[in-house]
Amino acid sequence: MKEFGVEDIKPILDRYNLDHHLIRRGFFFAHRDLDKILDIYHSGREFAIVSGRGPSNKVHIGHMLIFNFVKWMQEKFGVEVYIPLSDDEKYVFGKVKDLNEAEFFAYDNALDIFSIGLNPKKTHFFISTRYPALYRYSVTLSRNLTFSTVRAVFGFKGETNPGAIFYPIVQSAHILLPTIEKGLPVLVPIAIDQDPYIRVVRDISAKMELFKPAAIHSKFLRGLDGRPMSASNPKTTIFLTEDESSIRKKVWNALTGGWKRAKDQRKYGGKPELCVVFEWFSTYFLKSDDDLKKVEMECRNGEKLCGQCKEELIDYLTDYIREHKRKRRESIKELRGTFMHEVNEEIMSKVEGMDDESR
Amino acid sequence: MKEFGVEDIKPILDRYNLDHHLIRRGFFFAHRDLDKILDIYHSGREFAIVSGRGPSNKVHIGHMLIFNFVKWMQEKFGVEVYIPLSDDEKYVFGKVKDLNEAEFFAYDNALDIFSIGLNPKKTHFFISTRYPALYRYSVTLSRNLTFSTVRAVFGFKGETNPGAIFYPIVQSAHILLPTIEKGLPVLVPIAIDQDPYIRVVRDISAKMELFKPAAIHSKFLRGLDGRPMSASNPKTTIFLTEDESSIRKKVWNALTGGWKRAKDQRKYGGKPELCVVFEWFSTYFLKSDDDLKKVEMECRNGEKLCGQCKEELIDYLTDYIREHKRKRRESIKELRGTFMHEVNEEIMSKVEGMDDESR
Repeated sequence: MKEFGVEDIKPILDRYNLDHHLIRRGFFFAHRDLDKILDIYHSGREFAIVSGRGPSNKVHIGHMLIFNFVKWMQEKFGVEVYIPLSDDEKYVFGKVKDLNEAEFFAYDNALDIFSIGLNPKKTHFFISTRYPALYRYSVTLSRNLTFSTVRAVFGFKGETNPGAIFYPIVQSAHILLPTIEKGLPVLVPIAIDQDPYIRVVRDISAKMELFKPAAIHSKFLRGLDGRPMSASNPKTTIFLTEDESSIRKKVWNALTGGWKRAKDQRKYGGKPELCVVFEWFSTYFLKSDDDLKKVEMECRNGEKLCGQCKEELIDYLTDYIREHKRKRRESIKELRGTFMHEVNEEIMSKVEGMDDESR
Repeated sequence: MKEFGVEDIKPILDRYNLDHHLIRRGFFFAHRDLDKILDIYHSGREFAIVSGRGPSNKVHIGHMLIFNFVKWMQEKFGVEVYIPLSDDEKYVFGKVKDLNEAEFFAYDNALDIFSIGLNPKKTHFFISTRYPALYRYSVTLSRNLTFSTVRAVFGFKGETNPGAIFYPIVQSAHILLPTIEKGLPVLVPIAIDQDPYIRVVRDISAKMELFKPAAIHSKFLRGLDGRPMSASNPKTTIFLTEDESSIRKKVWNALTGGWKRAKDQRKYGGKPELCVVFEWFSTYFLKSDDDLKKVEMECRNGEKLCGQCKEELIDYLTDYIREHKRKRRESIKELRGTFMHEVNEEIMSKVEGMDDESR
């Protein structure tokens, strides 16, 4: 919190009745102006959530954690949710071979996100290079930022694509879109490492006398090896496309807080605070504090062995993903209506076809 | 030509029968690959001309010179003409207060340009922030250029708007639009100081294996004080909105090649090579070489005094602008159809209303 200059979330939880397990358990731990935007809400005005996705790969369970939280916020506060899909970002930073590849993942990822049960009337997807007014908004904002600031915040080199220097402005336009188009103040749920983008958009907003977007900051969900989950480490990541055998193989390699020998575990007990399996219980599968406490105790006192926890996690994940695939198939029809621009039929039907065949 | 590394135009004139007074008289004096694009034309394939306008002010006669030449090319070669109106450029470089101001000048300037008699079926205007696919094209091109190159060519500072660093790519997308959308090779008529933009777009094209845009380079038309004509020096510039009394006032202050006293002029003769009035005869009003030669001789041998030439120029300009205003009014109806995107009704009708009232 000190490094990024953000506020602790704990002091404001009771005031706003923010009772979600991801907040209680410290996954969302910091904020900027969350109190301000909730005061606005409680004074009877609406706000919007902007929660983006960089479409360069399949969605994994780490991404879904944020969107599940967004869904909860949407239900609790009735907010409009805007989901920018930044094909341009992934292209200018060299993460996809072309914009069509990013567009394929955009529709694919949107389907995963939408299918968690977001309200189709209050959820708005757009692909960065496909939304006609976005470049105009970006140009409008650009005058309130200098190259020095962009360089200081993001640190560019000579070989940088000039599109990457412009991109922080485009991302600011993503975030300010509900403010520009509807006059809605914005809240952004975001992983803490992305806070520099929030600082940039808040600077721009202040200069333009627009509401400075509020943010709620999360930690990273850890991958199975204990490092932050990332699609570029597929062995330690659970994608929403996994089948049971691959889940099983991956989970059995998970980092835990237990002993190698069952004997030691029974004698000394494990350390759930180190264990990725326990973290996934805590963030995903055990929403009741009593259930979670029980697992924690059984681990610490040596009653429960890592193998048992892993088998439980495999079951949870398998059920979760089976259910997700079903919901994904059912969401296809409504997805198009949630896009703020015409969809590319060729690419969209490829995404749809994929679900028909293999899921 | 050495400084910019461009080719002399003279050696290729006869081969392609390029008989236009602005070429004969050295106003268009250099090129890149003009021979290549004309070879393509003579082999039976089409090409396109891209000739942009930065809409931050009224159009003056210096701008029109280029567009008159474009019209001649359109008639001679039957080419499609694309006219990007770079509202974004004028905004990111701080030349307009907002994008709406630039959009007003975009429609206003487009009307001036179109009314010279461009073919409505083969002329395509677009405003940079209004053409939906333009940002996508720009992002696609961006990967073929580095920040180092942009900095080396255009020399940015810390306080630069990051939009200005991205703009060379957007301008490349303007120029390559007919190639991207229609597969047409492109020719750009351009003032010599704009050649760095051509170098950038040619570099990008080479990397993407697209046809490298050809260019034909002009000098500047001089303003009445002998410096390059510029809208920011209104006293020495003739806008297309001038009336006779303001033309008279400005032209009487023109730099000439004559003597202060009529006596000296009659004795020693004048120097037409220094004279702005003569330059405007040469570029605009005396297309017959015999007529021009006659004025030159009468000046050199002291027969004709500067006052006479100025009075003639006032008459030419007054007639030209009166005629232009008439054609402008007549062109209003057809203008909308030449835009490649929806026009902003509010701003367009302001431009139209202006002509109804005051011209």
